[in-house]
Amino acid sequence: MEYTPAPLLKAAEQFAKLPGIGMKTAQRLAYHMLSLPIESVREFADGVRDARESVKFCSLCQNFTETVPCPVCSGNRNTKIICVVESPRDVSVFERTGGYDGVYHVLHGLLSPMDGTLPEDIRIRELMERLAGEVDEVIMATNPTIEGEATASYISRLIKTLGIKVSRLAYGLPAGASLEFADDVTLTKALENRNEI
Amino acid sequence: MEYTPAPLLKAAEQFAKLPGIGMKTAQRLAYHMLSLPIESVREFADGVRDARESVKFCSLCQNFTETVPCPVCSGNRNTKIICVVESPRDVSVFERTGGYDGVYHVLHGLLSPMDGTLPEDIRIRELMERLAGEVDEVIMATNPTIEGEATASYISRLIKTLGIKVSRLAYGLPAGASLEFADDVTLTKALENRNEI
Repeated sequence: MEYTPAPLLKAAEQFAKLPGIGMKTAQRLAYHMLSLPIESVREFADGVRDARESVKFCSLCQNFTETVPCPVCSGNRNTKIICVVESPRDVSVFERTGGYDGVYHVLHGLLSPMDGTLPEDIRIRELMERLAGEVDEVIMATNPTIEGEATASYISRLIKTLGIKVSRLAYGLPAGASLEFADDVTLTKALENRNEI
Repeated sequence: MEYTPAPLLKAAEQFAKLPGIGMKTAQRLAYHMLSLPIESVREFADGVRDARESVKFCSLCQNFTETVPCPVCSGNRNTKIICVVESPRDVSVFERTGGYDGVYHVLHGLLSPMDGTLPEDIRIRELMERLAGEVDEVIMATNPTIEGEATASYISRLIKTLGIKVSRLAYGLPAGASLEFADDVTLTKALENRNEI
């Protein structure tokens, strides 16, 4: 006997595709949606869709942005220092500290032979193109994880052949942690104590 | 300096409205959406919206359904026994057991003076209307919580005036549980309601 309406199951399946959300939570969310006013649900669906449809990549730093180039790249920043991060969230985290006036480069991923992520799958080519301009230093600010280290080391080897200084965030960060959850002081210290690699 | 595109923030705010999802998780989900193919995001948004738009309430049991009356109410069931539950999810749980052939009534909430949920806010009136027909027994199957008990007791008082039998789900030890971890109330109830074997 079928007792759950098919559209409800479909909505639950969609929620279950989200990272960190299992089938049980997904069902709860789908049921929750049905209990909301139809306007709230439309607002939710449109909000999610609009974000995906209206947000583009910055042609320079590859960060998510509404305007190209992004506010950071087109702002009054020191474009001779580029901070290389894994994801757009990491840019937000650095910007929150307010202690960095250079620009960024978002890789949108990390090298991972296990997951089959190769150099051409992340935005390394775009980074190398930017280095043709006037750049004094590249700060490798990937997470202090195995993939983060491997990616930093791979990219720094490429950059060194160009004679540009490369540095790495200081190990003020606890190994295995995620940038996203670092507190501002730790992050600022890590930035200040960066070491040439 | 604004570094997060407004549509992204809006999507995160929408996710944060979901139960059990905080701002941090909401942001991660919003960023995740941007990393998906645009088709997947449309599918997600449409799936959620469709569920809300196409699912109705059954005119009899008030459960979510695509067709009115719902498959349970229009199926070959014993309509003289009505099982009263808090939410549509509870119907799914009972149906999964396969051991019940009566029909249901979904209250869509529980009485809660704390939250300001009054009898007219949940579907008690609809239940009383159904009782005008031929009904032998009403099973109160709300959760064994304070609100669940209060609601069951309120409704059973109303129904008894009609001379219809009202029963309550048995309290006792859950199958597979250990006596050691049972709470006092459960254990006392299990002792009181002991059955001859």
